[in-house]
Amino acid sequence: MHRYRTHTCGALRSSDVGQTVRLSGWCHRIRDHGGVLFIDLRDHYGLTQVVVDPDSPAFKLAETVRSEWVIRVDGNVRNRPAGTENPDLPTGEVELYARDIEVLGPAAELPMPVFGDVEYPEETRLRYRFLDLRREKLHKNIMTRGAIIDAMRAKMKGQGFFEFQTPILTASSPEGARDFLVPSRLHPGKFYALPQAPQQYKQLIMMSGFDRYFQIAPCFRDEDPRADRLPGEFYQLDLEMSFVEQEDVFAAVEPVITGVFEAFADGKPVTKNWPRIPYAVSMQKYGTDKPDLRNPLEMQDVSEHFRGSGFKVFARMLEDPKNRVWAIPGPKGGSRAFCDRMNSWAQGEGQPGLGYIMWREGGEGAGPLANNIGPERTEAIRAQLGLAAGDAAFFVAGDPEKFVKFAGSARTKVGEELNLVDHDRFELAWIVDFPFYEWNEDEKKVDFSHNPFSMPQGGIEALKTQDPLTIKAFQYDIACNGYEIASGGIRNHRPEAMVKAFELAGYDEATVVERFGGMYRAFQYGAPPHGGMAAGVDRIVMLLCGTTNLREISIFPMNQQAQDILMGAPNEASPKQLRELHIRTNLPEK
Amino acid sequence: MHRYRTHTCGALRSSDVGQTVRLSGWCHRIRDHGGVLFIDLRDHYGLTQVVVDPDSPAFKLAETVRSEWVIRVDGNVRNRPAGTENPDLPTGEVELYARDIEVLGPAAELPMPVFGDVEYPEETRLRYRFLDLRREKLHKNIMTRGAIIDAMRAKMKGQGFFEFQTPILTASSPEGARDFLVPSRLHPGKFYALPQAPQQYKQLIMMSGFDRYFQIAPCFRDEDPRADRLPGEFYQLDLEMSFVEQEDVFAAVEPVITGVFEAFADGKPVTKNWPRIPYAVSMQKYGTDKPDLRNPLEMQDVSEHFRGSGFKVFARMLEDPKNRVWAIPGPKGGSRAFCDRMNSWAQGEGQPGLGYIMWREGGEGAGPLANNIGPERTEAIRAQLGLAAGDAAFFVAGDPEKFVKFAGSARTKVGEELNLVDHDRFELAWIVDFPFYEWNEDEKKVDFSHNPFSMPQGGIEALKTQDPLTIKAFQYDIACNGYEIASGGIRNHRPEAMVKAFELAGYDEATVVERFGGMYRAFQYGAPPHGGMAAGVDRIVMLLCGTTNLREISIFPMNQQAQDILMGAPNEASPKQLRELHIRTNLPEK
Repeated sequence: MHRYRTHTCGALRSSDVGQTVRLSGWCHRIRDHGGVLFIDLRDHYGLTQVVVDPDSPAFKLAETVRSEWVIRVDGNVRNRPAGTENPDLPTGEVELYARDIEVLGPAAELPMPVFGDVEYPEETRLRYRFLDLRREKLHKNIMTRGAIIDAMRAKMKGQGFFEFQTPILTASSPEGARDFLVPSRLHPGKFYALPQAPQQYKQLIMMSGFDRYFQIAPCFRDEDPRADRLPGEFYQLDLEMSFVEQEDVFAAVEPVITGVFEAFADGKPVTKNWPRIPYAVSMQKYGTDKPDLRNPLEMQDVSEHFRGSGFKVFARMLEDPKNRVWAIPGPKGGSRAFCDRMNSWAQGEGQPGLGYIMWREGGEGAGPLANNIGPERTEAIRAQLGLAAGDAAFFVAGDPEKFVKFAGSARTKVGEELNLVDHDRFELAWIVDFPFYEWNEDEKKVDFSHNPFSMPQGGIEALKTQDPLTIKAFQYDIACNGYEIASGGIRNHRPEAMVKAFELAGYDEATVVERFGGMYRAFQYGAPPHGGMAAGVDRIVMLLCGTTNLREISIFPMNQQAQDILMGAPNEASPKQLRELHIRTNLPEK
Repeated sequence: MHRYRTHTCGALRSSDVGQTVRLSGWCHRIRDHGGVLFIDLRDHYGLTQVVVDPDSPAFKLAETVRSEWVIRVDGNVRNRPAGTENPDLPTGEVELYARDIEVLGPAAELPMPVFGDVEYPEETRLRYRFLDLRREKLHKNIMTRGAIIDAMRAKMKGQGFFEFQTPILTASSPEGARDFLVPSRLHPGKFYALPQAPQQYKQLIMMSGFDRYFQIAPCFRDEDPRADRLPGEFYQLDLEMSFVEQEDVFAAVEPVITGVFEAFADGKPVTKNWPRIPYAVSMQKYGTDKPDLRNPLEMQDVSEHFRGSGFKVFARMLEDPKNRVWAIPGPKGGSRAFCDRMNSWAQGEGQPGLGYIMWREGGEGAGPLANNIGPERTEAIRAQLGLAAGDAAFFVAGDPEKFVKFAGSARTKVGEELNLVDHDRFELAWIVDFPFYEWNEDEKKVDFSHNPFSMPQGGIEALKTQDPLTIKAFQYDIACNGYEIASGGIRNHRPEAMVKAFELAGYDEATVVERFGGMYRAFQYGAPPHGGMAAGVDRIVMLLCGTTNLREISIFPMNQQAQDILMGAPNEASPKQLRELHIRTNLPEK
């Protein structure tokens, strides 16, 4: 007989009744029913009910056993008494009558229980992560994460991609976030950087002729903690393809992501043919480049109805040609109570308020705005928005660049409040035609809006002739339920176009060579057209596990202060270590 | 028609003759045969011969094209003229008559060619890695690496293992090599460490109840460059299992490694049922704990034949009980020339020489040693070693701890010189029963010989009662062709035994808690018995690719000075970066 087990705790069935078996596992729950002990023995694979009564030679030891002790149990499989079967448990028809018990690993009093669903402070959960990970929900999330990654791999291979490992000790990368640095012992005063993404390496892999690359890639960014980012490290499904245009990347990636979502959506609908929404349209309709399309509301520009109208605040604003009025429809929201509530919410968000019109039974508009602009304009707005009696519309006005974020929040809020959002679905879309450059107001200069290595639409001609701020890039995102889950682009593979693109952002050729020397050099020696993208593994797993906290889907996450309180990182280094690395600490004054 | 290609360069066959197709790729080789240009167009998938003659509208442009330019070619598929087919090429029956060519990526004059097998200095190869990676051999090695990793994954999953990702920004690990440190920006004066291996995390995963873990894990050690190690980072197939003994680990791992070797051995035989060789036996027979079993030679202790013999050097040595004489058999090596050559080799290795006996036709021994010890002892040695006329034996004498390494080299040398080593096979073996502790002569104390987290054989009782230096561990390696390709152990999962084990090596409980707090804490709360191992991915790929240089199987390796000369790492950091990280450089004086 095996030293620890003949079966796992999820294996026994009524067909095993009569057998002598051996199980090992954790004491999940222990109940004493009139002197008979029932121990739910748990392992990764399941739960089996162990019974010990005073007639058993194991009884005395069994009485000393506590929750989360690891024990080995030898005994006989028998049917549970009629009426006590547990149909929710695969092993629920049987129980193990214990004849011998061995304690393999006792447990001290637990700082948090494994059995049950009680919430515990995150500090305790992270410090005792090994206990938290035994709990059903987190244990299952981590297994789902693994299964999702397996599925991504399988689907990527099915699309003809090959997996590579790119270096982790490398040079500064161009993603623009802050690098983690690693002091070099052998090269005093020099530092490696951990990759923010394998961007340059994957492009170099294309220039090395490998055609289709992917990697489940660890990436590192030293950013201030944010709710929607794991501090320190995260994983992306990174991919790149040669001899492709944007459509080819879409054709390769869409089935991978759709397939993964469908496999893990637990029956929830997943978008089949993803809409392609230009960046400018997305901003106008949804107030964001990562729209939640489960929310059916679409904003519209209604400026013309307010121009020269009796509502002087808007009319005056519209005298400045950059200003606009956008409307957020509010179907079935046409009650004073609801409109006032939205107005108060807007004030809570730091806005002066949220103008609105309600359409009463019979169709006439009501509310201060309607009164000011009169029935004709009010009716024209209703008609444009396709609204009806009982509906409302809300209005934001001013410079769209400044109000767009709030408009997006207001659209979300109205949709949620009116119960228009179907939470049980996954709505996926391509967001395309991102602007290549943006205006950096702080430095009064043109900057790359996203990836500087993207190909500008129109190529080098556009760079030479167009106003940079009007140039679009072959750059795209995948949005899902309000999250950006992937981002990519067709790359600029012509060195002269790369130099020109950087020049417009204020970097001379020498800087390009210094910062991206490897890639710049590679461009000189036969670079194929190529493009790709990177999908956020953690965020996709988070969505599919139905949580909004990334720490619920990462096995050993750091806390929000970028500390691993289980392992005690970061920690002091010894003077010897610092000496060897040719560095000294330079602490802020207290 | 697709913008870049209708087929890859490996796709066209005679069944495509007559079709109009589009290919893109690199100009591998360009030949001018009497005014007709032949371009071998290459991509990841293969080579296709493109023909351009002066009648083609593409001729003028084709004349300007050079090696490694990336071009698009439109044209007609036609059969090659009879007699010019290339049976070595899957596309060898056809050629593409070019009607239109577009240059997608021109190339400057190449610092090294892609076509051909000429050797280039490693400096050039690493600096232009993207060119080197286009070359047939390296390109193939990298693809083989990926395929081997895929096979490892598939086989591990077949054995019921699940894949996890453990943190890369973490705390110092206990493997005992030097850590790479990462300064924390948010916690001034503190540092993360990159994992030397996920040892503690994988044990914590077992304590979290996951049962069977594996990972293709990046590992980091800041060690001085060595020929058989990649500087900086390397990959291991890391695994751990709960509720197992040593035999269970062997049963899980052996089929995985055998399977991977068989799949990639290119027909070379692979050991089916691996021998299990105790550490002490391996040292005695092979002079190493990573024996090359393709070499059939086994050393033997022949001390008794020299004790009190006429060969005074050995006889006097043997008066000290720790000294021994070992013999290395040399079948068919019984010539004066060969024995002298071995003697000179030993002197070149810094030894005083290498004593030997030759057995002449008829069976009598010859040489100075034989003369000194006389025919009876000489015959007894021959009989013990199973040698015959025409054979020789070589002798090393002294303290085995001091000569064992040389004895191992001498065994290798004799085997190689006598052509006894069959290079075309993979000989795998388990090396078991490693000593738990060893004597640290520098610090005059007992130290862990390998992994401090291993379970000592005999458990806590052995720790309490035995001389530490006699305690064996449930610790094992896999040796293949003279390399250690994997290492593992059954872990010590009882906190009291862990504390005792560290106490014997001179660490008090407070140190254990401080250095391994997370794991020590986890041991208190129901730890299952567990064990595992880690196999060196790079080394296995190296063996299967038939190279001895790890840089031939890693896509972007650092050079032997731990520099990435393609990307320019390590590099200076900016004063702002250093300030943010609360460190200063502390450069050695010039």
